[in-house]
Order: sequence, then C-alpha cells, then structure tokens
Amino acid sequence: MSTVIDLRSDTVTHPTPAMRQAMANAIVGDDVYGDDPTVRELETLAARLLGKEAALFVPSGNFGNQLALFTHCQRGDEVILGDDCHIVWHETGGAAVIAGVQLRTIASANGVLPAPEVKKRIRDGEDIHWPRTGLICLENAHSNGRVIPLADMAAVWDVAQQHSVPVHLDGARVFNAAVHLGCDVRDITRYSDTVMCCLSKGLAAPVGSILAGPAAFIARARKNRKLLGGGLRQAGVLAAPGLLALTDMVAHLPEDHANARYLAEQLAALPGVEVNLDDVHINMVWFRLPATLDSGRLMAALAAANIKANGPEGGLMRLVTHWQVGRSELDRVIAVFASVLAA
Amino acid sequence: MSTVIDLRSDTVTHPTPAMRQAMANAIVGDDVYGDDPTVRELETLAARLLGKEAALFVPSGNFGNQLALFTHCQRGDEVILGDDCHIVWHETGGAAVIAGVQLRTIASANGVLPAPEVKKRIRDGEDIHWPRTGLICLENAHSNGRVIPLADMAAVWDVAQQHSVPVHLDGARVFNAAVHLGCDVRDITRYSDTVMCCLSKGLAAPVGSILAGPAAFIARARKNRKLLGGGLRQAGVLAAPGLLALTDMVAHLPEDHANARYLAEQLAALPGVEVNLDDVHINMVWFRLPATLDSGRLMAALAAANIKANGPEGGLMRLVTHWQVGRSELDRVIAVFASVLAA
Amino acid sequence: MSTVIDLRSDTVTHPTPAMRQAMANAIVGDDVYGDDPTVRELETLAARLLGKEAALFVPSGNFGNQLALFTHCQRGDEVILGDDCHIVWHETGGAAVIAGVQLRTIASANGVLPAPEVKKRIRDGEDIHWPRTGLICLENAHSNGRVIPLADMAAVWDVAQQHSVPVHLDGARVFNAAVHLGCDVRDITRYSDTVMCCLSKGLAAPVGSILAGPAAFIARARKNRKLLGGGLRQAGVLAAPGLLALTDMVAHLPEDHANARYLAEQLAALPGVEVNLDDVHINMVWFRLPATLDSGRLMAALAAANIKANGPEGGLMRLVTHWQVGRSELDRVIAVFASVLAA
Amino acid sequence: MSTVIDLRSDTVTHPTPAMRQAMANAIVGDDVYGDDPTVRELETLAARLLGKEAALFVPSGNFGNQLALFTHCQRGDEVILGDDCHIVWHETGGAAVIAGVQLRTIASANGVLPAPEVKKRIRDGEDIHWPRTGLICLENAHSNGRVIPLADMAAVWDVAQQHSVPVHLDGARVFNAAVHLGCDVRDITRYSDTVMCCLSKGLAAPVGSILAGPAAFIARARKNRKLLGGGLRQAGVLAAPGLLALTDMVAHLPEDHANARYLAEQLAALPGVEVNLDDVHINMVWFRLPATLDSGRLMAALAAANIKANGPEGGLMRLVTHWQVGRSELDRVIAVFASVLAA
Repeated sequence: MSTVIDLRSDTVTHPTPAMRQAMANAIVGDDVYGDDPTVRELETLAARLLGKEAALFVPSGNFGNQLALFTHCQRGDEVILGDDCHIVWHETGGAAVIAGVQLRTIASANGVLPAPEVKKRIRDGEDIHWPRTGLICLENAHSNGRVIPLADMAAVWDVAQQHSVPVHLDGARVFNAAVHLGCDVRDITRYSDTVMCCLSKGLAAPVGSILAGPAAFIARARKNRKLLGGGLRQAGVLAAPGLLALTDMVAHLPEDHANARYLAEQLAALPGVEVNLDDVHINMVWFRLPATLDSGRLMAALAAANIKANGPEGGLMRLVTHWQVGRSELDRVIAVFASVLAA
Repeated sequence: MSTVIDLRSDTVTHPTPAMRQAMANAIVGDDVYGDDPTVRELETLAARLLGKEAALFVPSGNFGNQLALFTHCQRGDEVILGDDCHIVWHETGGAAVIAGVQLRTIASANGVLPAPEVKKRIRDGEDIHWPRTGLICLENAHSNGRVIPLADMAAVWDVAQQHSVPVHLDGARVFNAAVHLGCDVRDITRYSDTVMCCLSKGLAAPVGSILAGPAAFIARARKNRKLLGGGLRQAGVLAAPGLLALTDMVAHLPEDHANARYLAEQLAALPGVEVNLDDVHINMVWFRLPATLDSGRLMAALAAANIKANGPEGGLMRLVTHWQVGRSELDRVIAVFASVLAA
Repeated sequence: MSTVIDLRSDTVTHPTPAMRQAMANAIVGDDVYGDDPTVRELETLAARLLGKEAALFVPSGNFGNQLALFTHCQRGDEVILGDDCHIVWHETGGAAVIAGVQLRTIASANGVLPAPEVKKRIRDGEDIHWPRTGLICLENAHSNGRVIPLADMAAVWDVAQQHSVPVHLDGARVFNAAVHLGCDVRDITRYSDTVMCCLSKGLAAPVGSILAGPAAFIARARKNRKLLGGGLRQAGVLAAPGLLALTDMVAHLPEDHANARYLAEQLAALPGVEVNLDDVHINMVWFRLPATLDSGRLMAALAAANIKANGPEGGLMRLVTHWQVGRSELDRVIAVFASVLAA
Repeated sequence: MSTVIDLRSDTVTHPTPAMRQAMANAIVGDDVYGDDPTVRELETLAARLLGKEAALFVPSGNFGNQLALFTHCQRGDEVILGDDCHIVWHETGGAAVIAGVQLRTIASANGVLPAPEVKKRIRDGEDIHWPRTGLICLENAHSNGRVIPLADMAAVWDVAQQHSVPVHLDGARVFNAAVHLGCDVRDITRYSDTVMCCLSKGLAAPVGSILAGPAAFIARARKNRKLLGGGLRQAGVLAAPGLLALTDMVAHLPEDHANARYLAEQLAALPGVEVNLDDVHINMVWFRLPATLDSGRLMAALAAANIKANGPEGGLMRLVTHWQVGRSELDRVIAVFASVLAA
C-alpha cells in the first residue's frame, strides 16, 4: 500500500530523521532552573535570526500569542487586530480569559490592516470611558496563506510608533513570509516589537514555538510562562529538533512553495477548477471546485488513494504542502482530482 | 443672571421636584436582605413595562450592561456586537475584565447589525479552536441617537433563535426608541432575552438603571450584582424617583423629541449649518458647522450666555434636549448660534 | 401597633429626617463629568476626616474594597489578609473575578493579624514560582464587632513598610473603632495606605461608602470605578445624606455603643445567658443562650413583639444597635428575652 | 573528572537511554487533530493506572493543576486547600488569573487537611454574600516529601461527597506515595475525582504530566487545554518516554526511596546532623545541620566534588534521590558531608 499523503495542513508534519536523532542525543538540563543548554542555544539562535534581543521557547504558537498579549497588556487594555486573524478565530477566546483584554477588530483585506483604520481605533488621550490601547497585532504570513507586503506592515508600525503602542507579530509562518518576499526575516520583524514564530508547521519540529522581543519583555514573559504552566523541564529534547527547524528546514521552505505553485498550476489546468495563482504565496493552495462536483465522491477517491485532505466548504478547498510531500506525491494527488473531475 | 442651559447630554438631567419629594418620603428597607418595598415596586413595574418576568435595580447603565454580559456568559465566550456600540466604545474595556468574554465586532450601519453578518460570526458546531458564541448585543436607541427599525432587530433575533444564542439589548434609551417608533416598548424588547434601560438620562432619575429578563436569569444577576459591589442598602431612596422616571417622565419624552426637532429645524435655517433632519430620531441633534466658523468664538459665546455644550469635533456638533430645556431655552440657544454665524 | 425594632444589623438603618431633607434639597451635577458639587464636598470632607489626600464616593462597602484590590494590585498578585475577614467571607469571591488576585489567608485572632505571620507570607525576592505580594488587608472594626488595637495595626504596618507592600484598611466601621479606642479616626487610618469606610451602617446614610488614599491612587480608582459600573450621575442626592453621616451621625455613635453595653449588661443578668462584656466594643452584642432554650419559641416571641433579629446559630446570637434603637426599644427587647427565658 | 551528581530535586532527571530511543522512534501524528497514536496510548494507559475514565497529556504539572481548577470551577468559585500546598506556594498565583477562583486555605499539618476544618469552610446553602465552594484540592505525596495517610484522604473525601464538592488531587508524585503506602496508586486516587501526576520528576520523562478524571471532564479539559496553549502537535515524541515513565520508571521508584533512606541514615550518623527518619517517606531527605557549620564552606566542598545541591535555609537542607543517583554516588556525597563536618 502506498504511504499516506497528508495535505490537511503543515501542522501535520512529522519530525525529520535528523530531528529524531537530535532528540535522542540532546544535551538537557532543567529549563525551569535555566539549566538546559540546548534550550539556551535555541533561544539565542532564534533571537538572532528574528532580530530581537531575547527569545523564549514556548509549547505552541497559541501559547506564544497568548503569552505576548498577557505580557504586553494590563487587564482591561484594548488590542487592535484583524477580524480574520488567528488570535480572533482560532485561539478559543483565550485573550479575554488569560490577558483580560478587549479585542478591537478591523475588517482586514486578506490580512492587511489599513493603517488609517488602525489609527482611528487607537484611544488617544485619557478618558474615563476608554480602555487603554495596549497592543496592535499583525499576522504574517496570514493563516489564510497570504503574505502581507512590507509597506503595509511599515504603515501600521509608523502609526503605532506615533502613538507609543507596541506591536506584536503573529509570525507562526514568518519564515514562509520571508521566502515569499525574498527578504531576510528581520526585514519583516523590524515592524514589530515582539514576534511569535512556530518551529512546527512547515519547519517540522514536533512541538514548540518561539516568542522573541526586548530582553526585559522576555524576562517578564518567562515568569508569565511559568504562571501559565509552560515552564518545561528537560525541554532540550524539543529544542534540539527546534534548532534543526531554524537551520535545515528554513532552507527547505522554498521547495514547499514551489511545490504549492506546481500543485496550483496543475489543478488550474483541470476542467472547472478555479485557482487564483496570484494568491499562492506560501505553501497553501486554495481553489474552487465545480458546483456540480459531488464532494463526497471526491473525498472517497482521495481516501481510497491514501490521501488526507480537509473537504471543501462551499466549494472552496485548501491543500497544504510540506517536506513530506514531494512532486511524486503531488502527481498522485493531481491524478485523483483529474479522474474525479473527468467522471 | 439667566439660568444655565446644559445641552451636553441627557445624562446631566437633574431630578424633578416630584422626584426630590419622592426621595424624601421614600419607604425604605435593606435591599441586600430583599427588604426594600420601593425597590420591589420599581422592579415589578419595570419588569411589566419591559415585558420581562423580572427586573433588577442597578447603579448605572454601564453596570447593567456588564452585569448582563457576566450573567449570560461563561468566561471565554464570544459576544457579537456592533463596533460602534456603547459596550465597545465607552465601557472602559470592562467586558474582558469582568465577564472575561471576547468581543467579536461587526461594522454597524448607524447601529444596525446586518443579520447575515451576525449569522456568519456565530460559531456553529463544536471545534476545539473556537470559543462558544455566548451572546449577541443590540443597542436601541443607539447612543448616537439613531433608532434601529424593528425589522432589523427581528432579523437578528431570528438568527439568534435559530442558533440558540441569547440576545441582550442595551436599551439605555429604549423608551426614546419606542416614542420614535410609535410603539410600545415591549414591541422592541421582545427581540431580546434581556434588556438594560436607564432611569437617568431623559427620564431624569438621579441614579440607576434596570436590568430585566427571565426570572432565573435575574436571580443569578442578583447574586452577581452583589459580587460586583452593586448591592445597595436603602436603595428605595433611588427607586422612588425611578418610579416617577418610568411613569411621569416616560410620558414627557415626546416633548423632548419635539424640542429636538424644533432645534434641528431652527439650526438648519441658519446660514451654512447642515442638519440631516431624517437623523433626528430622539432627543439628539447632530449638525455640521461651516468650515470657516471659529469654534473657539462659538464656545465663548455659548459660555457667555450660560449655555453648556460639547464643542464640535471636525465641525460636527451634538446638542441634546431634556426636561430642563424648553422652547424658551432653545430660543436662547438658537439666538447665540444665529449671532455667531451672522458675524 | 408598636413600631418595628430591627436588631439584625446596622445595615438596616433608615436615613434620618435630616438626611431625607438633604436629599430633597441636594445641589447636584453629573458626577461622571466631575460636575456634582455635593459629591465633591463629600469627597473633600471624607479625605480630610480620614487623613488621606483624596477620596472617592462608591456605591457600597463591598464595591470600595474590591475597587481597592483592583487598583492596588496587578492580576496574579497575592493579597495577605485574615481568614475571617469580610473580603474573604462575604464578598462573593469577587477578588479573584475582578482584581484577579490570590488570597493568602492567615488565621486571625478576633481580627488581629499577628505581624510575624504576615511577614512570613510576604514573598521576598524574585522567584519564577512566586506571585508578587501586592497588598495586605486589615479590617477595623472587624465585622465580628471587635476592634483591633492600634499596636497590632502598627506592627503590621511596620512589616508592610519594610517590604514596600501597601496596606488597605476595610474600615466599614472605622468610626466605630475610633469611638471605642477613644482616638481620632486618623490615628487608625495612618496605619494604612488606603481605607474604605461606609456611610451607611451606623452612620445611617441610605447608600454609599468612601474609598480614600493617595491622590494618584484615587485618580486610578476613579477610572476603575467607571469600568466596574460605579460611575453615578447625580450622585449628590446620595452625597448629601453622606455628609450628614460624617458629621451628625459620627457624633451619635457613642450612644449606639452605650446602648449596646446596656443591652449586653441586661442580657447578662438573665438566667442562663452568657455574654462576654469585654467583647462589646462597638454596637454589636454577641451572647450565648441556654442550650435548653427552644429558639423557635424565642423567634416567635420576638416576631410577635415586632422585633426583628437573626436567629441564634449553635446557641450564639447577635444583636446590633443603631440610631433607631434607643433605651425604650431595648427595654422592650429585654422584656421579651426575660419572658421567654423565664418560661 | 567525576560526573555531576544533582540532588537539588527530582525535576532535574534526564531521560533514560530507553526514553531517548523511544523519542527517536515514536510514531506520531497531529495531536490537536487527535491523530497521535502514541499520545492516545499514553492517555489510555495513564487513565487505567490512575483508575479514571480518561486522561489528558499536559505540558507540565503546573499546567495540569491549573487546568483542573479552570475546568472544575466557575469563575468566582472558592477552592479549599492547604496553605502549604504547591498550588498556593509555587504556581505564581495562576489560580486567580486563569480559573478566577478564590483560594480558601487551611493550616495543614504536613500536608494533611483535617476533615472537620474542610467541612467548616464549605459554603452550604445559598447566600448572596458567598462564593460557591467549587473544589477541594489535596496533594499526595506532598511537595515537602510527606505522604498523606489514606485515612486522612478518605475523611476529606467523605466530607466532599456529603456536600457534593469535587476533589482534585495534586499527585505530582502520587506514584511515590503509592510506593510508600505499599498500595496500588488507585487506592489513593479513589479519594479524588481528578488527579494530576507528573511523568517527569522521579519518573524521568523529559516533559509532561497527566490529568485524569471522568470522561466528560477530560473532554472539557481538552478544549480548555487548547485555550491555554497546551495543545501540542506531534506530542508522541513526549508521550513515548512518558509511557516508559509509567512502566519502567514506576518500577524503579522503590530503589529511589531505599536510597533516600540510606542517605538519611548515613547523614544521621554524622556528628551534629539531625534527621527525622520517620519523615523520609519518598525520595526526599530533610535534615538539620549543626548551627556552627559554615554553609558556604559546605557548598564549596560539594561544588568541588561536582555535587549540586540547594543550600540550607535556616540550617535545614533537602536532598533528593532519583535514577541518576545510586549508592556509589551517595557515598561520594556522604563523604563530602563527613569531611566538612569533621573539619
């Protein structure tokens, strides 16, 4: 039987063989005591790559974002962010529970927050009726697969600076964004005070993310991480594959992007499939199936071919590439689509 | 010297002479023990007028709204509401602190929440990434002075019913809305599970608001009111004028509205003043002053005439009528505007 | 029929005739705008009497205490206080909801917190496992009717100063404490940074309490009061009787205390009743009834005589005096006890 | 140079060689999707061993305890627990931030909560002034190394059952407790509704703990774990050593306890050292050094011998045994103490 091809998300990535070896060999210590040398090495490397003074290993991207909100803000502050961002949509309402902050959402255009809209929502001056504007959150690459242009980030950053409001970047896939923009990741993160990036997803580490920012911020975040139960013991076993994520796997991302583009182009050539190739920025392909297609039949055919995918919603479907999906796997996928669409 | 005319808001209303007498004569008891007969009478009357099973006296409209969120929702729930509503704009970020809920805002069209937009934001089905949709909030009359048509409320109510999500109505000025719509206030409140209405503002009670809803909800709200420090002792001294607010002063609201219309029409007749008469729904008049007008000079002239008003913002100005402002006072106001604009 | 005598608590006090008149005549304004002259007068007087820079009118004692915790502390701080204090026992668990603080209780000896026990619980130095000690709370008079000696307050204050931890005094009945100690109320409040005192209870105002402290603290508390829904409009109608509470009624407290002592002595003379006269510090009398007494019969006899009292718990009973209970009322009460005990 | 001997805590344990191999070979999936077979295997085994319907892998013991509070309680509930327990002392005040609950502490006698004291603090009946008693927490083995007798747990459990209050057991070292008591771990956990136990500490897994309880509770905890950022992706790499923790390493604990006893006896034989051998229940040895000893000299001698230990506080010192410390290592340690004490 052929191996499974999993296109549901890049969160499904298994650790690479090198990562498995690194876990087995990791030099470890008790990281709650600050004694784990591999975690320290990871945090040092991550801070440098992300262009920040310091970094902190956290158990997940969700954890890192919520920790950022909790550490930046006082209870009762207001946070300005896009209404389709991950923090709003997919973090189980944690912001009000943990940080105790009020989300002030802006209609985003594919993840872009228009700077004048941000400016309009900043509470300027003191008024007894107003929460303090405590934070602005950006997301790049957006969890919908789109990359925000640097100029749009810069515009929000300028507004934030004018009003002395900090900016946090949900950079779960910030290295994908950098690949798409053809820039160093620091060219992106310079438009934020703090950034969270995932070592899992396309970078394939089994568990963990990074929160990076000013040293004083990270010191406070370290204590808050303990409060939230994210102080791990021999975390070096996760930091070891995390180091490979930031080295080997960052280097692999362009191939994932090229594969996504290949997949998009092949799908676009199929009868009745609509793909906006301009939207394929990173490793995600969105496309629309013909209204006449029986999605149950499609999903059955994929399952029969050992291909995992999330079913279409309203005809719209998403496939995600990653290191375990190469050209031959994609050709198998495309063949199934071709056969179902031809029927 | 002429008496002061205060057009800043209807929150500035003094208690009427009858209210002052009622305070002095109020029969009271310890309302934390449930012993205050005047509070009970007020709560009974308010429940009946608002068409709900039970009602609770609360210290302010802000308190009543936050208590509603706290009592309807579990910590971490999501609340759908308009991005220009009072809870978002003017309640100091309390929703995240007290109820611990995530606000999910919708761009409102003058306070109207398009029902399809509400529907789109309801979290349907169970997903580990999703907060529960705990509440939808409407506001009528809107704090910008606009009244929401019943059909728009009904449309949101239908969506809410389909998804079993409760609806809270911020009805700080719900009696004003009923006057404008020419309906009973219950024709409005039937599109909500709970409603907060203010006894102060146009109704002139010195302190206090009402939260009304199902009896079981109000029982829980009563305990939560204590937790939040809103259990008052001989609250009958506030309930007594509150009773007059719901009787005498509700009957007076049409005059405030007529006066607002009169003021709007007179202002519209002045050179360079723009008033959209269709927007004068209740006791608020919004108008635009000529760009050439020196607002400092206007405010000085008003102050010299013992008239209090909030200055224009970007040329836009708001005046609010209430029981202490009759035709003769308005004529004094109009004369000042006429004289400044003529200069 | 004889008038009702209510000995359940001093929270049941009705406003005096002078207070009723003051409400009717109060000069008012919109206190959310800072425009109410009577509230300002009350806050100024209260600050002076309590020996603090500034004061704030709040709707209840519970509100004032919770506002103090919320304003002193950051979310996650630890608060050291007695395990039998009002904040722990009777504020519905609000401290964790509103301020988000961890209560660290000490076994108190009739309200006295041993200073070495307080010291032991202060978190000194920085440890990632430790919350910050954000506040120490004292209560005087204690809600059990006992007054804490000044030396005990001073000892805790010294510890607090050494460790730079602020102290809040729940002084719901701090004027009663001053009467018992024969000192100025400022001799008590000097051992705290902030103090809450009630205008209701023995001081008979219908509604309201005061939170006093440093000017910068009160400014922050003012905004937090709004967040919690305690910003009232024409609060002058409550401030007017509040002013009389701080003048006329403070002067009346010694009579309440003398009456409590009279009641205690008369009860002590009845067969089988145990009263510790040394425990009668303020207006509360605790006594133990004979184990053989049928408490149902006692309560029926009191009710028949139009006397309200909370029934005994485990034989222990509490009666509270206040301005509406003079010698002749007490004699009626004592007569009922005498008759029931004689039977 | 000799290898390092680390006696600071059992949290410093490195994964065993078998665990390292297990990590490298782990079969993994995306556990947020419920797809990781190794995590499922661990959760199934843990539930069975702990005698509960279901179990959940969590990133740390702190996380598991806080998740239990958050899932058992509503915001504003009260939690009864010992004043020296880990949740109070070493979890950074998280209970008020995350669960929003009020801690109601009891003076514990070496971790034992006297059942009558627990009973006294349960809020029975409904009172507007009272938080609901939402949970009782026990800890066994206590973090001070003492094991609570089963009879004491049973007594609290009975009280809890009578009042329908759930019980959570902080069983970070519950397997150590079972070894000491000579019973199955289920003989302990039967006196609690839910239990948290650590896979790290003496069981040597690098990262992770288990929260176990009724299936419906664990389902809600799973969603709450996501909210708190504890949803991990390929968590099988941690579950694989976790499985060995629950099998091989549980079997190893008696040796750790025997080693602790050996260490205690050897130290007791040294001049001036006081050890209460009756207190050596698990893998922790507490002892008192002679007042005359220069602790700086002791710590220097230990460091010179490559031995890590936390310094004495007030003469009291703690050493902890674990799988990396055998008899020969202990003999090295004892030799250093002997030499310093002889000097």
